Amino acid sequence: MGQISQKLTEQLCGPQSADQRHLETLLQVSRAIGSIHDTDLLMHTIMDQVTAAFCADRSTMFIHQPDSRELYSNVAQGVEEYGHEIRIPDRHGIAGDVFHSHEPVCVADTLEDNRFARAVASNTGYVPRSMLVVPVLHRTGRGLGVLQVMDKRVGYFDELALELLEAIAVQVAIALENAQLYEAQQRQFDSFVFAFSAALDARDPLTAVHSINVANYAMGIAFELGQGPAEIEWQRIAGLLHDVGKIGTPEMVLSKPGRLSDGEFAVMKEHASHSATILSRIEFTEQFKGMAETAAAHHERLDGSGYPLGLKADQINLRARILAVADVFDALTQDRHYRAGMSLEQAFGILDEQAPHALDANCIAALKRFMAFN
Amino acid sequence: MGQISQKLTEQLCGPQSADQRHLETLLQVSRAIGSIHDTDLLMHTIMDQVTAAFCADRSTMFIHQPDSRELYSNVAQGVEEYGHEIRIPDRHGIAGDVFHSHEPVCVADTLEDNRFARAVASNTGYVPRSMLVVPVLHRTGRGLGVLQVMDKRVGYFDELALELLEAIAVQVAIALENAQLYEAQQRQFDSFVFAFSAALDARDPLTAVHSINVANYAMGIAFELGQGPAEIEWQRIAGLLHDVGKIGTPEMVLSKPGRLSDGEFAVMKEHASHSATILSRIEFTEQFKGMAETAAAHHERLDGSGYPLGLKADQINLRARILAVADVFDALTQDRHYRAGMSLEQAFGILDEQAPHALDANCIAALKRFMAFN
Repeated sequence: MGQISQKLTEQLCGPQSADQRHLETLLQVSRAIGSIHDTDLLMHTIMDQVTAAFCADRSTMFIHQPDSRELYSNVAQGVEEYGHEIRIPDRHGIAGDVFHSHEPVCVADTLEDNRFARAVASNTGYVPRSMLVVPVLHRTGRGLGVLQVMDKRVGYFDELALELLEAIAVQVAIALENAQLYEAQQRQFDSFVFAFSAALDARDPLTAVHSINVANYAMGIAFELGQGPAEIEWQRIAGLLHDVGKIGTPEMVLSKPGRLSDGEFAVMKEHASHSATILSRIEFTEQFKGMAETAAAHHERLDGSGYPLGLKADQINLRARILAVADVFDALTQDRHYRAGMSLEQAFGILDEQAPHALDANCIAALKRFMAFN
Repeated sequence: MGQISQKLTEQLCGPQSADQRHLETLLQVSRAIGSIHDTDLLMHTIMDQVTAAFCADRSTMFIHQPDSRELYSNVAQGVEEYGHEIRIPDRHGIAGDVFHSHEPVCVADTLEDNRFARAVASNTGYVPRSMLVVPVLHRTGRGLGVLQVMDKRVGYFDELALELLEAIAVQVAIALENAQLYEAQQRQFDSFVFAFSAALDARDPLTAVHSINVANYAMGIAFELGQGPAEIEWQRIAGLLHDVGKIGTPEMVLSKPGRLSDGEFAVMKEHASHSATILSRIEFTEQFKGMAETAAAHHERLDGSGYPLGLKADQINLRARILAVADVFDALTQDRHYRAGMSLEQAFGILDEQAPHALDANCIAALKRFMAFN
C-alpha cells in the first residue's frame, strides 16, 4: 500500500461525519485514478485506493472480457503468492451475479450466501466473510466490470458504504473508459508506424526488416545504458521511422546491385534530410518530441564526417548516437546488394574501428552487452 | 439547457440534505463530463451542468492559454448575442486573481470587490453580483483554468457551495486533462496520415496532391449525400490512405511517360490489394473500422469490371462508391504523364458515361453539387 493510501486510511477511518468523508474519499479516489491511462496500473490503483478508503482487508477490481466471457483481475490484493490474476466465468459467484443483474449487494456473511464461489476463494487462499459488490457500468448502461471490497477491519459494511462504493464505481467507469480509449489510440498510432515502416522497407527485399532491426538494436542499447521505459519506447519509434525519407529514393539507387556512383550516393544521402522533413510535419505527442531532428541525424558522425548537416561531438545527442550505432550494425550484419552480411565478430570489429572518433564507444559497448558479445 | 440539466435543476434545488445533494451533484457532473474528449464541447457541458447544479444564472469555464497568457472561454452562457468567446488577460479581474493565487473565493457583491473587471462585464452585457470562483488545477498543481458560477437564483452562495464547486473543479481538471491528451493523440495520428500520404504522392510530381484531392472530393460527396461529421471524417482518412499500396509500385511504372503495357498495368493494379494488406495491419480505432477493405475497393466497379476482386453492385458499399468517384474525378482533372488534365465538363462527361453501370450515379450527382457544376 502506497504512502497516499496510508494517509487516506488514517484520514478516512477516523471520527468524521460519514457524508463529509464520502465527498473527500470520492475526490481522493478520482484524483488518484483519473489520469491513469494504463489499464493494468489503473486496476492496481483502484484496488489500493478502495481498500484504504473502506478500511478493508482487500478489494478486487474485475474487468469484463467479452470474448472469453470472463471477469478478470490482474491481481487480488494480498494474494500475490497465489498468482497474479484471477479469471472467473462472468456468471460465476456473487461478482458474476452483480455483473449481470447490475444490482449492488452488501453481503454480511458469504458463508450464508448460496451464490458465493467457494472454489475461487479456496484457489486464492482467501475466504472473505463480508463483501460489498457493485457493478461498474459504462454510461450507456453496458457492464464494464465489478468492484468488490472485502472484510472491513473495524465495524461492518453498511448501506452508506455501499452508496459510496457505487459512487466510486462511477469514477472507475469513467477512468476505465478513458484508459481503454487511450490504449486504442496508442495501438492505432503504433500499428500505423509499424505498418508503414514495414511497407517502406519492403520496397527492397534485402532491407525488408531493416527498420525493425534498428528499432530492436536501439532499444537494446538504450536498455543497456540504463534508460527507462519511456526512453526505450522513444528509440523504438525512432528506429522504425529513421529511414522514412527513403520513400523518395528511386529504386534504381535503393536496390542497385553494386556500389553506388558518387551521383547515386548523393541521391541516397538525401534520405536523411527527407526523413527530417516528413517527420517535422507530424505533430508528435510530448512523449515523442524531438523525433524529426534526431531521426534525421542517424548518419551524423562525431568527427563531423557525417550527413546531412556534418554535426560534431556534442551537437549529436545520445539518442542520435544510439540510432547511428544500431543503423550501422544492422547494415553490416545484413546481406547487401554488393556483399553478404558479416558475422558479429567482423561487424563489431568495424564498429570498434569507428570508435570513438565517429561512433560513440559507450553505445557500441552497450550493444555488445545486449548481443552477449564478448 | 439540455434535458439532463433541467432534471438536475429540479433534483438539486429541491429540499434535500446538503451533503446528500453534494455527492449526487458531483456524480452527475462526473458522468456528464467524464467521457467528453472535445475541449469545446467539454466547456459547454461544464457550464451547462454547473449552472444547473448551483441554481445559478450562468457560469463560465475559463481555460488558460499559456502562449497568449489569457483565460479563454468559448461561450458565456446566455450572452451568445454578444459573441461566442471571452478572452481576458490571465491576471485580470477576480478570475485572474484566483488563477494566480489558486485560492477559491466567494464574492457576495462584485460591486464592492476592487478586483472585479467591470470592462469585461460591460462587454458581455452581463454584470454578475454574486460569484463563486475556483481554480482548476492539474494534479501537479499547475493551473489549467478557472471555473466561476454567478448569481444564485434562490438564496445565497455559501461556503458549502464553494466546497462543492471545488470538488467539481477536481473532476473538471481530470476531464480537461483527458480531453487535451486525447486531442494531442488525434493530432499525432492525423498529421502522421497526412505526412505519409503526402510523402507517398510526392514520389511522382504529377500526383503530388492526388490523395489530398481525393480526400476533399470524397468529403464533399459524403457531405452532399447528407452524411454526418464522423462519416465525412472517415472519408477524409480513406481518401488520404486509399493509394498507400503504391508504396510498392516501381517508379518506372508509376511515372511512365506514355500508356502502360499490359504487364505494367498488371503491376500498377496490384496497388489496390497492397493498400488492403498494409491497412489491414493497422489497428484502427472504432471510428475508422473497415478502412482496409473499403480503401482497397476504390477500383471496384458496379458491373464487376473493376479490381482487385471484381466485386459487383451491392458488394460495393457506399463508402467505396464515394471513393471511386472521387478517385476517377481527380485522375481525369489532373495532368497525367500521357495527357493534360480535363475540364470539369469533359471529366463529368466521362463520369456520366460510367453511370450507372460502373460508377454510382448518386455519388456523381453529389460531386456535381459539391463542385457547383450544372
